Amino acid sequence: MSASDSLVDVVSFDADGLVPTIVQDAESDQVLMMAYMTAETLRKTLETGRMVYWSRSRQERWEKGATSGHTQAVREVRVDCDGDTLLFRVDQTGGACHTGYRSCFYRRRDEGELVVDGERVFDPDDVYDDA
Amino acid sequence: MSASDSLVDVVSFDADGLVPTIVQDAESDQVLMMAYMTAETLRKTLETGRMVYWSRSRQERWEKGATSGHTQAVREVRVDCDGDTLLFRVDQTGGACHTGYRSCFYRRRDEGELVVDGERVFDPDDVYDDA
Repeated sequence: MSASDSLVDVVSFDADGLVPTIVQDAESDQVLMMAYMTAETLRKTLETGRMVYWSRSRQERWEKGATSGHTQAVREVRVDCDGDTLLFRVDQTGGACHTGYRSCFYRRRDEGELVVDGERVFDPDDVYDDA
Repeated sequence: MSASDSLVDVVSFDADGLVPTIVQDAESDQVLMMAYMTAETLRKTLETGRMVYWSRSRQERWEKGATSGHTQAVREVRVDCDGDTLLFRVDQTGGACHTGYRSCFYRRRDEGELVVDGERVFDPDDVYDDA
């Protein structure tokens, strides 16, 4: 990546230096998750072609799949009209969600109640030491 | 909608009382936009079946399509694992983006440069008085 990158230049990071990032499965078009990037993790993502986020809860860089092996390879990158949201299309290995589901959006509203409607692709107990 | 709603109860609104909301075309699976809801606009959306947001820039309720006619009818509602992001699948009339594109994500990164890659479905000059 060159020192100047049109994408990084147009992104409006919020007061905490973050930009919300939507992640969509490049094959199925399923929305897998949303997470946040800093300018540094965005640059790292563009350099490596692997999704790297900023964990707001842990306040640290978060290389997706570093623990689980469930990496996300970048296929396409888009930015919205205001430059304050990113959309990545990725090849998802395994599941995007730490609960074991393919997508984090595995709960659907059905007549005022939430029902589980998603594909469970791994058991978190097998993947995370502290799960 | 009943006084108690499982979805509203599980949503974690941020310090500003907002939850980011991803909007996906129910037919094409294209991601159309991201915007923010308050508890009140979320309840209004669920009651009416039409997307109602909170405009952070104008600090007011924003009924999608009130000016443009480009409304969004709710087809499906999902919430993520942490309860801090919503995903709505909608029937989009016209275009989601105030610039006239079908999707707000009409710019794609191509070798470090941003290129326009989206369907323009209306002329903002014809829709907004102040465009």
